[in-house]
Amino acid sequence: MKIDDNFFMKLAIDEAWKYQLLTYPNPAVGCVIVKDGKLLAIEAHKEAGTPHAEVNALKTAFLTQNKNSLLKTLTNSSEIHDFLIKNHNGFFSDCEIYTTLEPCNHVGKTPSCANLLSILKPKRVIVGSIDTNKIASCGIKTLENANINLTTKVLEKECDNILIPFKAWQNKTCIFFKMAQTLNGMIDGAVSSQRAKLYVHMLRDKIDLLMIGGNSVRIDKPILDSRYVKGKNPDIMIYSKTKHFNENISLFKVPNRKVIISDDLFKLLDYKFVMVEGVYNLLDILKDKIDFLILIVSPKIRAGINANNDLNIDFEIVHENYLGDEKIVFLKKRDNK
Amino acid sequence: MKIDDNFFMKLAIDEAWKYQLLTYPNPAVGCVIVKDGKLLAIEAHKEAGTPHAEVNALKTAFLTQNKNSLLKTLTNSSEIHDFLIKNHNGFFSDCEIYTTLEPCNHVGKTPSCANLLSILKPKRVIVGSIDTNKIASCGIKTLENANINLTTKVLEKECDNILIPFKAWQNKTCIFFKMAQTLNGMIDGAVSSQRAKLYVHMLRDKIDLLMIGGNSVRIDKPILDSRYVKGKNPDIMIYSKTKHFNENISLFKVPNRKVIISDDLFKLLDYKFVMVEGVYNLLDILKDKIDFLILIVSPKIRAGINANNDLNIDFEIVHENYLGDEKIVFLKKRDNK
Repeated sequence: MKIDDNFFMKLAIDEAWKYQLLTYPNPAVGCVIVKDGKLLAIEAHKEAGTPHAEVNALKTAFLTQNKNSLLKTLTNSSEIHDFLIKNHNGFFSDCEIYTTLEPCNHVGKTPSCANLLSILKPKRVIVGSIDTNKIASCGIKTLENANINLTTKVLEKECDNILIPFKAWQNKTCIFFKMAQTLNGMIDGAVSSQRAKLYVHMLRDKIDLLMIGGNSVRIDKPILDSRYVKGKNPDIMIYSKTKHFNENISLFKVPNRKVIISDDLFKLLDYKFVMVEGVYNLLDILKDKIDFLILIVSPKIRAGINANNDLNIDFEIVHENYLGDEKIVFLKKRDNK
Repeated sequence: MKIDDNFFMKLAIDEAWKYQLLTYPNPAVGCVIVKDGKLLAIEAHKEAGTPHAEVNALKTAFLTQNKNSLLKTLTNSSEIHDFLIKNHNGFFSDCEIYTTLEPCNHVGKTPSCANLLSILKPKRVIVGSIDTNKIASCGIKTLENANINLTTKVLEKECDNILIPFKAWQNKTCIFFKMAQTLNGMIDGAVSSQRAKLYVHMLRDKIDLLMIGGNSVRIDKPILDSRYVKGKNPDIMIYSKTKHFNENISLFKVPNRKVIISDDLFKLLDYKFVMVEGVYNLLDILKDKIDFLILIVSPKIRAGINANNDLNIDFEIVHENYLGDEKIVFLKKRDNK
């Protein structure tokens, strides 16, 4: 296997995907640092308001060779920026820095990464996707102005794929579909492990609205909160033509959230980040409206109720992660550019 | 992400899996070489009779810093061994060598890797699985006798998983099941891409016997050869109670192979390496007899005939590779130790 720019960028891509969706409203980004041929850091942006991928990677890389540095105790992005600017002492001059997305050029919750890199003067910066976000872009211009050696568009398609959710929620409402099944497409019963459930609760903590079908509410009586991660509970939209539900079930008792009962899909557009939890019948209704599909696959074959399979959709697998023993597969529709 | 022994071993594991089954009758093995912190080689054993993973990696590593060496022109394992023994000049003394399987200790089609490593004297050898093959084992003993620093059992479970087919065909007949389906478990029609078909033909070139259900022969009239790779054509067993087939179809016209029509599964044991190509009904019959399952998943949702889903089997996903746009998933049964 070739150990080249693509190899190191792929490490950054895989790291970014581990925090996919959890960085809302920021994009998921990964960063790898190689110093004089030695792989020093593989990091990612983990949550909005915390350091960007580049800053996490710069910190990790610096600490590999300055183990007792005060930097170890710093977690705030501005403090890490300030520390590195004062103490880098040329450490990064023989470093190559791979980042899946053009380094940001604006000062938001955290200072500008492009500015920081311009001061640290690495040997080369290798970028995957070009940032089309008007506020944060032009990082490459800043690096060029600082005479830093640049290579752009490395594994650009794969890096662009990381940004599918970000581009959706930036421009409009991001709607994604979450489905769980066994290997053979069985969807009834609990197919998800505790680890997968925890992940779903982490997602619920990030989204604004959770949509679910009326039958699921009637039959499964789910709570639809994010108690496993003690997170915020998104508003709920029960997709149903009939408005009558037993309001004594737990779903209606969760404080500080709205429950909408409606079959008007336009209501989704009142929100920015929407997850639909359902199976094939709901997917059929939403298939032209979703930005991507998350499929949790449990490695079992199970007898059971067959899915409604009267659907024809072509997907591209954009990424997969393990969730304990299960897999989470990120899929985009083939015609979905 | 931590960059440690597990990280480098995982690179070796993923490389080994790319050649899984294609190394028959040898095990699939991966090897990674890190010199003074620099990642120099990620290689694997690719086919029986060609250099072992360690030899491929030693060659790649040496060439990174001796680009015009005569070594570049050598492909024969003995010649590479001899060249490295004569010309290493201490190159490997600051190298750490990760191998998914204990280096072999016997001289077969290729010389002993343990012996070669003893002479090259790397800084450290890191081993995943301990070789239980009586002929090739004791490589670790040889390295210990040469006072080489050893770390063993790194990601041992993952490394052992690579050996599932090897251990099966070493001790008895290895039987694996190959199935193709869409995301939602639809199995009718052509679900496989050209790339996936090519891979299946590569497998057919390696196996001794291909078993298929009688109905598939009657309906699909497959040739079941390995023409895409111009390989050898395995014997065929058509699993069928009735012995009558139209012998004018292409399947019966392929030269130099036997076609057995039988419902006696004991006939499989006349062979060493057997692939069963089928769907759920045949899987039901063979589920307690297979060593592992290969599932090719096409990222589509399709309306169609539902699989026979009257089955309950728990699997563990041991590995996945991309085959172009499709996935190949290696599964072992949960109770299959």
